[in-house]
Amino acid sequence: MKETMIYLLERPKLRDPVFIEGLPGIGLVGKLAADHLIQELNAVKFAELYSPHFMHQVLIRKNSVVELMKNEFYYWKNPDENGRDLIIITGDQQVPPTDSPGHYEVVGKMLDFVQELGVREIITMGGYQVPELQGEPKVLAAVTHEELIEHYKAKLEGCQVEVIWREDEGGAIVGAAGLLLGMGKLRSMYGISLLGESLGYIVDPKAAKAVLSAVTKILGIELDMSALDERAKETEEILRKVQEMQRAMLEQSMPPQQEEEDRGYL
Amino acid sequence: MKETMIYLLERPKLRDPVFIEGLPGIGLVGKLAADHLIQELNAVKFAELYSPHFMHQVLIRKNSVVELMKNEFYYWKNPDENGRDLIIITGDQQVPPTDSPGHYEVVGKMLDFVQELGVREIITMGGYQVPELQGEPKVLAAVTHEELIEHYKAKLEGCQVEVIWREDEGGAIVGAAGLLLGMGKLRSMYGISLLGESLGYIVDPKAAKAVLSAVTKILGIELDMSALDERAKETEEILRKVQEMQRAMLEQSMPPQQEEEDRGYL
Amino acid sequence: MKETMIYLLERPKLRDPVFIEGLPGIGLVGKLAADHLIQELNAVKFAELYSPHFMHQVLIRKNSVVELMKNEFYYWKNPDENGRDLIIITGDQQVPPTDSPGHYEVVGKMLDFVQELGVREIITMGGYQVPELQGEPKVLAAVTHEELIEHYKAKLEGCQVEVIWREDEGGAIVGAAGLLLGMGKLRSMYGISLLGESLGYIVDPKAAKAVLSAVTKILGIELDMSALDERAKETEEILRKVQEMQRAMLEQSMPPQQEEEDRGYL
Amino acid sequence: MKETMIYLLERPKLRDPVFIEGLPGIGLVGKLAADHLIQELNAVKFAELYSPHFMHQVLIRKNSVVELMKNEFYYWKNPDENGRDLIIITGDQQVPPTDSPGHYEVVGKMLDFVQELGVREIITMGGYQVPELQGEPKVLAAVTHEELIEHYKAKLEGCQVEVIWREDEGGAIVGAAGLLLGMGKLRSMYGISLLGESLGYIVDPKAAKAVLSAVTKILGIELDMSALDERAKETEEILRKVQEMQRAMLEQSMPPQQEEEDRGYL
Repeated sequence: MKETMIYLLERPKLRDPVFIEGLPGIGLVGKLAADHLIQELNAVKFAELYSPHFMHQVLIRKNSVVELMKNEFYYWKNPDENGRDLIIITGDQQVPPTDSPGHYEVVGKMLDFVQELGVREIITMGGYQVPELQGEPKVLAAVTHEELIEHYKAKLEGCQVEVIWREDEGGAIVGAAGLLLGMGKLRSMYGISLLGESLGYIVDPKAAKAVLSAVTKILGIELDMSALDERAKETEEILRKVQEMQRAMLEQSMPPQQEEEDRGYL
Repeated sequence: MKETMIYLLERPKLRDPVFIEGLPGIGLVGKLAADHLIQELNAVKFAELYSPHFMHQVLIRKNSVVELMKNEFYYWKNPDENGRDLIIITGDQQVPPTDSPGHYEVVGKMLDFVQELGVREIITMGGYQVPELQGEPKVLAAVTHEELIEHYKAKLEGCQVEVIWREDEGGAIVGAAGLLLGMGKLRSMYGISLLGESLGYIVDPKAAKAVLSAVTKILGIELDMSALDERAKETEEILRKVQEMQRAMLEQSMPPQQEEEDRGYL
Repeated sequence: MKETMIYLLERPKLRDPVFIEGLPGIGLVGKLAADHLIQELNAVKFAELYSPHFMHQVLIRKNSVVELMKNEFYYWKNPDENGRDLIIITGDQQVPPTDSPGHYEVVGKMLDFVQELGVREIITMGGYQVPELQGEPKVLAAVTHEELIEHYKAKLEGCQVEVIWREDEGGAIVGAAGLLLGMGKLRSMYGISLLGESLGYIVDPKAAKAVLSAVTKILGIELDMSALDERAKETEEILRKVQEMQRAMLEQSMPPQQEEEDRGYL
Repeated sequence: MKETMIYLLERPKLRDPVFIEGLPGIGLVGKLAADHLIQELNAVKFAELYSPHFMHQVLIRKNSVVELMKNEFYYWKNPDENGRDLIIITGDQQVPPTDSPGHYEVVGKMLDFVQELGVREIITMGGYQVPELQGEPKVLAAVTHEELIEHYKAKLEGCQVEVIWREDEGGAIVGAAGLLLGMGKLRSMYGISLLGESLGYIVDPKAAKAVLSAVTKILGIELDMSALDERAKETEEILRKVQEMQRAMLEQSMPPQQEEEDRGYL
């Protein structure tokens, strides 16, 4: 495999779809939110993304079955005739932080793919690490174009969570949550990034809920949040394993343990 | 050399060949098992794989002769008319753990190559590091497709070693032993990974034996294990040198010793 | 995005343009000088350069708007009929020091682009770190061709700052300030590097002024320096944020914090 | 510059040329030997090799002139009608040890180039680090094909230095000195590696002399060694600067100093 590729399982016809991203990151906020959205809406998986920039390993799934590291695309057809459909992406990992070109390649492929499916608007979800929380977690917002601020403010009217518009000039949004907006903009796509304040523990369902209430408000859909907490627990268990693996492998890849590493393949 | 390439020494005609991988990894279990299989079966080397992702050095072989780092393909023709032939791969090293794209490239080339030779089934061998052994080393199994479990269980009936089916969801198989199955699956190949419990010392012939008794049971062939132990000793001696080289070079490549490294070429 | 690309906003007709580089580096001397030159001359932005070798993130600009990391090209049309026009490049960052091929790719694209616009002469600006300053910062000069020394000495006649011709054989100029001259030379372009002595604090307007007085002397233009100091303050504030981000991300990318990093995306 | 390229200054007609490599490495033995050979034979530079895998900087040469990092090819026409001509390569650096694919690319280009010029035989020169020297430094030899050993032994008959044939199975030759032989072998070229024992100080003219007396014996040419020692001194001074630069840059490229590095461009 020389470059990132997408396997299409089904070719959906979608009505002016909104592209929603939730991949692993701070507090797993984005991934939790995406997983919950997918399951509550019974969204349908229709494509898988594989990349040579992901870790060179397979994961053990249920029943002793192995699978490559991957990201997954789901679609949801809006029952409301006048509503818009959704494309949601989540997955096992993002490209490691040491591989910037890998990030640009993977996000570029994502955009090629969803643009072909008619996507113009992108919403990215994630966590925003803070040293301490004052009251309920707030949601930080940033957009691709200044004129969108009023547009989204109007849609967020009456949202239960407090949405703060970022003004930390020079601040950043790292990884897919940022690149999808920055690179999408160059293709005349537009959108918003919504990051939930989090202390950054392994999984943070509270921050995920905060982000989801903003996202659902923008999309004008209802969502039952009750299942989110247990889901968070399962996710935590599985992901802790993945992360231990990753850390272990990365530590092995450091010179002092290199010898180990050369023996470090399962 | 811009990318991984395979030199064909001979083009064998093979009967529904099974592809068996045993490259350096934990306790050198996979490599030991592959080397033993090759020598006991008098398998014939028919191709060599070279990659720019391997270490940038040559190894000294017997009689002051140098050779690039490489992996090697062997074939074995099954004397039994109704039996299946084998393709076995082993070699000096795997791509370093810091180079995921390199791993995907090399494993992709291996699969292109063996698929052309008619391979549908893959068996990967390796070690599984454990803090301590209870009794004889067990063998951990994982498969590409759930429906294979019964198939392999049946074949493993009466195997001397205990085979445990992995249920550590979120666990991983790193390197070629994992990628061959995960990437093969995307090409509708199928197979099993068999990892022998090991404390992870430089070479672990006991774990290799355990893996081989499971593999031979699945293949329905007999194998004399008596020579495995001395073979392990030789391997250990040669590999310790290689590993010292690697560690030395990697340490030199760290900044504090960078100056050394810049003088660090032989 | 698989490789560095340049977005053209406007195609200027330029008279024998001189290409002037000032990207982030020691004491931000080059960037400060370029920013000041751009604003005092009211230079016009006409192209943006994006690269997969830049950090995989977007920056927050004014009003909660996100933008990819980038470099920017400006032009200035010389009001003097017989004067030469300018192309000035500055930006958010250079390729990280761990990615040499990225540096060569980005600088190669810059040269392709400005050569097409008729550039033959290149002036690169930057800082030169010294342990302590004796009196006013001096400016260190190096050229692409020996015969240029007299040419530039003549132009620098009567310059307020002391220009020292480098004789530290084996010394180096790292990054775009060096590669633009070294690679440009291979395309029969020519030019000079002017580096202001700096203690290397975050921003060093004094060194930037020294470099600018040499550059403006060579170009034969007048420049009001009074605004440079406040400008330095603003720049410092924004850049400190960027740099904290970068350091944070890089620290996260180290193994011990890898787990963090996997949660380290906003 | 996307890949390694060679600039041809002159196209020589050569008689069955032998290719001799001496690039920076342990004790600079190879580079010293190559430089001395070039100057004593008045060899003519006819090509330059540039690579995006070299450091992203220019070096200051004499008279404030900058030049990209490079390797250089020289030829020598043998005055003896029946003698063979030489191609000698030396240069500023080798690809850093962290970039194996870069090494394979650069060495591949070298071989493409010299093969076109008719090279079949390769001699690589370098240092071999030892903890202590017993008497005069010995020279360690390894070859591409076993049958060459007798051939070279015959030529080395009566050589003043002791040549030891390597038998450290599993030992290695890192960098161009190894890859040229290993990769050349795959193109049916042949040759020998000669490494002089060295304590690995910055420059080791003694080891260089030892290697040169073996090389000249094989080539059947005479060489005055008297100038080698002063030459070593000059080289040392220049190279120490280069190496300090490299170390400094690499240290800066480590996370804690990342902030520095982002200001770390001259």
